[in-house]
Amino acid sequence: MTDVKISIIGAGSAQFSMSLMRDVCLKEGLKGSTVCFMDVDKGRLDIVHGLATRFMGELKANLNLVKTVEREEALKDADFVINTALVGGHSNAETEREVGEKHGYPRGIGFGGYFHQLKLMLSVARDMEDTCPDAWLIQAGNPVFDGCTLMTRETKTKVIGLCHGHHGAYHIASVIGLDPSKVTFQAPGVNHCIWLTDFRHNGEDAYPLIDEWIEKKAEEYWRTWDGSPLDGEMSRAAVNLYRIFERFPVGDTVQQNPTFSWWYHADDQTMKKWFNKYGGFLSKTGWDYYLEGLSKHIDRMNQLYKDPSTPVSSEFSPKASNEQHIPIIDALVNDNEAKYQVNVPNRGALTGFADDVVVEVPGIVSGRGVQPVHVGPLPKRLTLQILGTCVQRMELGLEAFLSQDKEALLNMILWNHRTRSYEQAEKVMEDLLALPFNEDLKAHFR
Amino acid sequence: MTDVKISIIGAGSAQFSMSLMRDVCLKEGLKGSTVCFMDVDKGRLDIVHGLATRFMGELKANLNLVKTVEREEALKDADFVINTALVGGHSNAETEREVGEKHGYPRGIGFGGYFHQLKLMLSVARDMEDTCPDAWLIQAGNPVFDGCTLMTRETKTKVIGLCHGHHGAYHIASVIGLDPSKVTFQAPGVNHCIWLTDFRHNGEDAYPLIDEWIEKKAEEYWRTWDGSPLDGEMSRAAVNLYRIFERFPVGDTVQQNPTFSWWYHADDQTMKKWFNKYGGFLSKTGWDYYLEGLSKHIDRMNQLYKDPSTPVSSEFSPKASNEQHIPIIDALVNDNEAKYQVNVPNRGALTGFADDVVVEVPGIVSGRGVQPVHVGPLPKRLTLQILGTCVQRMELGLEAFLSQDKEALLNMILWNHRTRSYEQAEKVMEDLLALPFNEDLKAHFR
Repeated sequence: MTDVKISIIGAGSAQFSMSLMRDVCLKEGLKGSTVCFMDVDKGRLDIVHGLATRFMGELKANLNLVKTVEREEALKDADFVINTALVGGHSNAETEREVGEKHGYPRGIGFGGYFHQLKLMLSVARDMEDTCPDAWLIQAGNPVFDGCTLMTRETKTKVIGLCHGHHGAYHIASVIGLDPSKVTFQAPGVNHCIWLTDFRHNGEDAYPLIDEWIEKKAEEYWRTWDGSPLDGEMSRAAVNLYRIFERFPVGDTVQQNPTFSWWYHADDQTMKKWFNKYGGFLSKTGWDYYLEGLSKHIDRMNQLYKDPSTPVSSEFSPKASNEQHIPIIDALVNDNEAKYQVNVPNRGALTGFADDVVVEVPGIVSGRGVQPVHVGPLPKRLTLQILGTCVQRMELGLEAFLSQDKEALLNMILWNHRTRSYEQAEKVMEDLLALPFNEDLKAHFR
Repeated sequence: MTDVKISIIGAGSAQFSMSLMRDVCLKEGLKGSTVCFMDVDKGRLDIVHGLATRFMGELKANLNLVKTVEREEALKDADFVINTALVGGHSNAETEREVGEKHGYPRGIGFGGYFHQLKLMLSVARDMEDTCPDAWLIQAGNPVFDGCTLMTRETKTKVIGLCHGHHGAYHIASVIGLDPSKVTFQAPGVNHCIWLTDFRHNGEDAYPLIDEWIEKKAEEYWRTWDGSPLDGEMSRAAVNLYRIFERFPVGDTVQQNPTFSWWYHADDQTMKKWFNKYGGFLSKTGWDYYLEGLSKHIDRMNQLYKDPSTPVSSEFSPKASNEQHIPIIDALVNDNEAKYQVNVPNRGALTGFADDVVVEVPGIVSGRGVQPVHVGPLPKRLTLQILGTCVQRMELGLEAFLSQDKEALLNMILWNHRTRSYEQAEKVMEDLLALPFNEDLKAHFR
């Protein structure tokens, strides 16, 4: 029996919160823990808390479930804070996208959501310094790379960023015809930009099998492909990146726009050529499909909540999710040492990057904390062009955010590869700052 | 009397060689030195050697002047090698410019000239390792930044890169109404990208005087400006860079295209707005004016050569030039310690850059050699965006050159801010490689 308190900020996402519930219910070593659900949306909070309570009952798990709309209450006495909050939801992003497109940025330009997320993350990490200075902050909401770098530089809070993109390595294995359970791999980089540096099947180097697949089977795979609009992991773009940069991109690395690889995203036609017949995850079709999936899920949760006769465990089967959050908490609490894919300050793990840049690398997690594993250098041009560009984008973003200087904000937009003129940058910036939900940003940037 | 041998590679440029002659003739401590002029163009070599011989006679200087078309002979027993060579001259660049424009790059995209210069520089530095391993290589030909980084990484030859761009600080002083002789300054960065970090008049901080000039006089200066098409040093672009990046750009820093500040160069109209009514140095008008100046100078040299009755010293007045080459040689030979503006591996002088990146910083030159002076960090966004982008461009160029991999070459073009599509990058690359004078590059990139 532990008396660990795990607080979830932004717990209104039932999908995410119930994943954690599955894991925490099944962890023997976390029996007796308190799980505190916190969200500013009381309606969704009630649903998640209600479903979680029923689920726990169905599993006869022994947890203390509480809910609150107050961050302060969630942080009080917390041992772990999992921050999955998304400020403003997806609708603001759609409004911003329209503004971006009006100014010549196909599919828009990331803006308010980015800064709002940074503000939220930093304020949670700062509050934790006061309220629960010994607690771990597990950052799940994006941007993990920028946010974790910001929080670890600006606060003393212990931060681990998590993502599930590295599971893409198993998808690569399965597409090229390997049994994923017999595959081991290493995929370091920065969050959403990770690369297969080692790939083994039954302990043997399996990179030659990727090469063989590309040579003999890729064309047929692309011709007959009939997957989800979101699936671009084994697309022409992925193979092209591998060709130029000498390592295979993993997970959503390939579908990054517009940081590096802008050239696959130049327009709708180009995206259809490189990703899939729909244009991939970031195309209008792909993104609408994604949002529709989210919205259907919310409807299903509402129904499940209103219908107590249906067991919650029929929707969320009581087996471990593949998320790392709860296993990592267990490792830290009970010294159950294991290796995870973590986002932590570099400290020499990835050669060629500053120690205070948060990298995504294997980390040994135990009672001692998180220790990044040294993975050495990536190929030179991958470091230079791809990761170098990601780091530069992140640094320019943080510089704009922290300096609060409008010139730095303008500079960030000028730097964007898709910006064509100074006037365009000025205009899109002013129009985005003029949106009602960006009023605070208009005051932030002087 | 010394027995120092100074060899000039690419000595056919009379303007440059005669500047050195003026300085070496006047340096007491270099009396008796051998100056060896080397150029593959025998015609121009004869002219320079002839003019230099007459000039020495007129000044009654005591030097041993020799000429050769063989690099081996120039390097043999050399103590100093000044490399000012430009492979292929300017006409190839004009042909490449046309190809670039055809593919949507206004004013073209740097290509063959860049790689030919790197090849030449590296081969000179390598030959020196064998022929004159103790000699200093003074690199005057561009690209100084990329070439010096390449040579210092790949060879043991001692390299100093020189440029006169930092004199622009005196131009700033004179435009804002100060006496340049009462000004001191510091302008570190990388070559062609240097920034006024300290600016004093009579020992007092003179930055407020720049601010005052901008506030009260700049608009009138721009409205009534009537200088050379090449002059953009105090242009709207320079003031805009200062506004965004918090330090004033010095010399040709402001007219760099397309590495950073591509936004001032988007098209002819944009250049006219930001630089001057002609469009600045890199506009068609500016560049044609520059080439015409060079060509007129060559004609004048030819005439002077054919007319022994005119004293050479009537064209090249026998007073010190403002070039640093000969004073630095004097400092090294005779331990005449002084501070110069040098391009050398960083070794901690400029914070935030690797030790093996060649930076332009003050250096103490003496019998001990060259010791970079620590200047610390530049403002964060200047380091990140401007210098970071310069370093990334340089590193991608060297990676393409050294890997000899066509994918790395393509990647360098994809990275260029003005590239709009993958196909555009492929096509411009293939067309440039297909030019007759780039045949060796076609073989170089596999």
